[in-house]
Amino acid sequence: MELKDLAPLLLTTERINGDIDLTVITDLLRGGKAANDRRKELVEVIEQHPVLSDRDMVYRNHSERYNFGLKKAFHYVKLIQEGGYTDQEQAILLNALGEQVPFDLHRIMFIPTIENQGTDEQRAKWLPLAKSYKIIGAYAQTELGHGSNVQGIETIATYDKATQEFIIDSPTLTSRKWWPGGLGKTSTHTIVIARLILDERDVGVQSFLVQVRSLEDHLPLPGIEIGDIGPKVGFNAIDNANCAFHKVRIPRENMMMRYAKVLSDGTFVRPKSDKLVYLTMVYVRATLIKALGERLAMGTTITARFSAARIQGRKPDMKGEFQVLDYQNQQHALFPLIAIAYASQFAGSMVIDMHDSAVESIKNGSSSFGAKLAELHAVSSGLKAWLSDRAGDGVETCRRLCGGHGFSQSSNLAHLFAEIAGANTFEGTSDVLVQQHARYLLKTLALLPSSETSTTFLNKAKAFSDIKLRCKAQTPGDFGDVDLLLEAFQVRGARIVLALASQMKATKNDGNACMVLMTRASTAHAELLLLGALIRGVKTLPIGPERDAVANLCSLFGAWLITKSLGDFRQHDYLSSKQADLVREQVVRLLPIIRKNCVLLTDAWDFSDFELNSTIGRYDGDIYRALVKRAADEPLNASEIPEGYEKFLKPLIQSGL
Amino acid sequence: MELKDLAPLLLTTERINGDIDLTVITDLLRGGKAANDRRKELVEVIEQHPVLSDRDMVYRNHSERYNFGLKKAFHYVKLIQEGGYTDQEQAILLNALGEQVPFDLHRIMFIPTIENQGTDEQRAKWLPLAKSYKIIGAYAQTELGHGSNVQGIETIATYDKATQEFIIDSPTLTSRKWWPGGLGKTSTHTIVIARLILDERDVGVQSFLVQVRSLEDHLPLPGIEIGDIGPKVGFNAIDNANCAFHKVRIPRENMMMRYAKVLSDGTFVRPKSDKLVYLTMVYVRATLIKALGERLAMGTTITARFSAARIQGRKPDMKGEFQVLDYQNQQHALFPLIAIAYASQFAGSMVIDMHDSAVESIKNGSSSFGAKLAELHAVSSGLKAWLSDRAGDGVETCRRLCGGHGFSQSSNLAHLFAEIAGANTFEGTSDVLVQQHARYLLKTLALLPSSETSTTFLNKAKAFSDIKLRCKAQTPGDFGDVDLLLEAFQVRGARIVLALASQMKATKNDGNACMVLMTRASTAHAELLLLGALIRGVKTLPIGPERDAVANLCSLFGAWLITKSLGDFRQHDYLSSKQADLVREQVVRLLPIIRKNCVLLTDAWDFSDFELNSTIGRYDGDIYRALVKRAADEPLNASEIPEGYEKFLKPLIQSGL
Repeated sequence: MELKDLAPLLLTTERINGDIDLTVITDLLRGGKAANDRRKELVEVIEQHPVLSDRDMVYRNHSERYNFGLKKAFHYVKLIQEGGYTDQEQAILLNALGEQVPFDLHRIMFIPTIENQGTDEQRAKWLPLAKSYKIIGAYAQTELGHGSNVQGIETIATYDKATQEFIIDSPTLTSRKWWPGGLGKTSTHTIVIARLILDERDVGVQSFLVQVRSLEDHLPLPGIEIGDIGPKVGFNAIDNANCAFHKVRIPRENMMMRYAKVLSDGTFVRPKSDKLVYLTMVYVRATLIKALGERLAMGTTITARFSAARIQGRKPDMKGEFQVLDYQNQQHALFPLIAIAYASQFAGSMVIDMHDSAVESIKNGSSSFGAKLAELHAVSSGLKAWLSDRAGDGVETCRRLCGGHGFSQSSNLAHLFAEIAGANTFEGTSDVLVQQHARYLLKTLALLPSSETSTTFLNKAKAFSDIKLRCKAQTPGDFGDVDLLLEAFQVRGARIVLALASQMKATKNDGNACMVLMTRASTAHAELLLLGALIRGVKTLPIGPERDAVANLCSLFGAWLITKSLGDFRQHDYLSSKQADLVREQVVRLLPIIRKNCVLLTDAWDFSDFELNSTIGRYDGDIYRALVKRAADEPLNASEIPEGYEKFLKPLIQSGL
Repeated sequence: MELKDLAPLLLTTERINGDIDLTVITDLLRGGKAANDRRKELVEVIEQHPVLSDRDMVYRNHSERYNFGLKKAFHYVKLIQEGGYTDQEQAILLNALGEQVPFDLHRIMFIPTIENQGTDEQRAKWLPLAKSYKIIGAYAQTELGHGSNVQGIETIATYDKATQEFIIDSPTLTSRKWWPGGLGKTSTHTIVIARLILDERDVGVQSFLVQVRSLEDHLPLPGIEIGDIGPKVGFNAIDNANCAFHKVRIPRENMMMRYAKVLSDGTFVRPKSDKLVYLTMVYVRATLIKALGERLAMGTTITARFSAARIQGRKPDMKGEFQVLDYQNQQHALFPLIAIAYASQFAGSMVIDMHDSAVESIKNGSSSFGAKLAELHAVSSGLKAWLSDRAGDGVETCRRLCGGHGFSQSSNLAHLFAEIAGANTFEGTSDVLVQQHARYLLKTLALLPSSETSTTFLNKAKAFSDIKLRCKAQTPGDFGDVDLLLEAFQVRGARIVLALASQMKATKNDGNACMVLMTRASTAHAELLLLGALIRGVKTLPIGPERDAVANLCSLFGAWLITKSLGDFRQHDYLSSKQADLVREQVVRLLPIIRKNCVLLTDAWDFSDFELNSTIGRYDGDIYRALVKRAADEPLNASEIPEGYEKFLKPLIQSGL
């Protein structure tokens, strides 16, 4: 049989050889059948749209991608204006575009800032304009000289009592607003985060609404210098801005005054609390955890299918070739990534539940609110830091696992990578987040007993730190026991937090001198949380082959994580040298078991071919015809003779004629 | 002081605070002052060239990059034709282009194949044409259905006795040649690797020279279907081909017949030996080791400078902000990468020396040739596999360490990453290479004692496997002792190879069932080789602060590698739990020591600003002005009003007017 026909057959055979009903798992991953059906309908809406279905971004440079992105943004607005979709449905539609487009920050940051930080009058004035896209807004916080570190912001807003105006100014080169998405060429307005100066006194950072372009002709307004910062690793359909304000005057009413206020005489009224604002930021982080996991799920789906359909390297008996999926290394690299994607989904849901519970306790005026918020902030920080690194690494690993065809843009793996690469930085750099997470763990340790679900393991810190404590595993399979696994992760976590506490004491709280250890503490807790979330996810499945399949994935996740950080688990010989061998054996032992259902376990995410947009990740495994078909689309192939032939090839080739 | 002025000052201060004469280290890294001076002169030639100095690739899509690449290739040929450069100088000039261009494979593969596999007549006929670029050639091995796995190739060359021709044919969709660089739109000729069919019998894979395009008008010749495969992660200035042959006839003389031969009557003469061909492949891999290390060196240079010039996050005493380089995590992530780049340089030189010695022993007809070749193949495989993963990961880590500005293409980190991303696959996929490496180690173990330098550690395998053997370190600083370090890596390596031998026995030589362990064996040996090469590099430096600085880097490299694989080193408690803590302490202890000279240690590579092409990696640290200046070049900024304004923005914005 020809390879091109063998490929689909091999993939189909994987599905036949599996023993699970994947709809059971799809329901678990996608929050039930109804939700998933609706999600698929919405993706279909995009797939059927004449403009929004575009997937040719890889042929475009940044300018071209922006220009097409603007077109997509326009059609997206028309679609949602006409379709009457809920906010959640709009998010699904947007996600199905497969790339960020210029109005995204308008929806994600500009409108929510007015909603959360605007007074009733401000909301009444601006929200109708914004929601009907009569104005398009951005959110300008980051500056050239300072990233998300709000403390370092240099832009100033000086109040002029005489005219009741703020004068927005960029006093230095590095105070230029840098990065705000959609502000470079698109937006008419923006929120500007600036230091408020009252009577020559800096009273801290506030938010101001500034018009930057004329609504008549879109030209920058006087005093506004604005443009695009150039191409980036990802997000190239977006116009990230480079913007300077030269003493731009705005009316007093344009400061967002729901919390802090400046009265007409210049009196500053300090805010009572802006914890709700804070909560919004945490919510963004929670959804990011799910989104990163889902991108990794896309990568693993593509890779599992390709690995099944692709053959390579003769078998020792010389009868045919191995499927790439047969190789132990391929399984060893891919299956843990499938597990990470699953775990992220459940951990993301957990954080969203924590968020909802915190919101509830605000509404009830409950005193537990502060504690809930602190936990939520720490947990979401730690998980976001852990996952933004691992999801990026994971998708890149998928690319490598697909060899040359993975290196082609038509695999879509490079695009998936580029679109999540920014997550290491935005919404908090990992190095900052792990510290905040670790400091929370230290604080919890100091105030034991803890009643927060995520940190109850610290209540046993003393028992766990007993250097005579030993893991009870005697066989590789013992590491499949969830209680044994959880204890191992709790012991490891507790010991690192204790070591950190002692190092902090020894260094007189020099956080910087303890940062490597803080990172280990954050990692240990994040992995405990992910493992716990995945274990709980397994338990919600009915007993049967589906539950077994996900449970095996969960066992692999736990055992594999142990092998990745064996030094931690072997500390004080909690794991013996022999047990270290056992856990490695368990990982290898699980690979062929998981392989039985690995294609179905990725199928279970129920991504359509349109969503995956991958020649080699097609559901039907017809990868070779797809690769040839896609290659024909390359614009260079429009003509047999390349553009530069006359000038650059002919003179050389015909030099001897 | 304004941040924009502080940045250069901070970087300069780092250099002042260092205590080494970097020219001493530059000489070591660059093979002496004369070689480095010449290298810089050549880079300067490119920098001064009106076309070849172009660095605007990030603004272009694949078609545009190819078209510009063709222009560059033409000017490059003109330059070398007029300049009388040596082969090595030509390689330096090419490297200074900062991207691959369409004629690269002509130089790297087409010409060498004729030189190595052509008869004297073939060489006399084709080399003058090729070397004067009157024909432009490619090398077509990889097919759609099979990567570098030569066994699986489907293209056939059937000998027709009657006409004394070969009929080159692509019998299936998957037999299409896929990936050959420069063949898509540029080349007139190509080497085709095909199965030779004589009297309906498949006698194996041979090389054929096939003309694919007319020298008159560049149109594909009859029976040739040819085009570009579309955009990729990297190498987008190259036209990788999708090419099918439909019963294309070539004269018998076009089979490369230096070794195997087909006589006019169809008699097949088997080759005596093609080990020299093999040696060329190994040489490519050796230069790749150096090249990957050098790309990582570029990444670390950019990152060290940016980290020194950038400030972020208030100090606990509230007096100013930390330099990013002050952060323990930044040091912990960056400094080992600086060490990897150094180690790769020395390891690459070691492999090149091994190659030269093998060539020498062929010339002398020495019987040691076979053993030398086997060692060379194994060592270059293991190092290439290890480094292609780590260099890619390392440059990506550098990108993350530079935060948002790293995410901008103007940092050049994403481009560096893209240009090395293919190395995981080309010249041998890591998974295949580590197996070949591990099997060599097994074979050596079975035939002990070994006299090959790289594997003498196996001679002590029995002593090293004594489970009572203990590392002697008692303080963190003891891990700075090179003998102690080397013993630890040798013990670890020997134990893994022994475990692998026993697992292979237990599985009846089922290589696939042992692949994870094979990978560990390859990794362990590669790291031993890299550490050994770096230690020898240190020893060539005169005693003094320069030697101390590189020795500290070497200590960090060893200790850091141990922490990354603590499970290995703790096997049978060769390292105790206490010693594991000590080695971690050693890593952290070395960071501030290395920081003292870290900018100078990267400066020592002596890359020019032109080579680094990075706004944030400038020698002078004037990063903020550079970022603003570079942003102005973005084509979107040519007009204040974006292209789509009338159609996609105005209708929304003015819908209410």
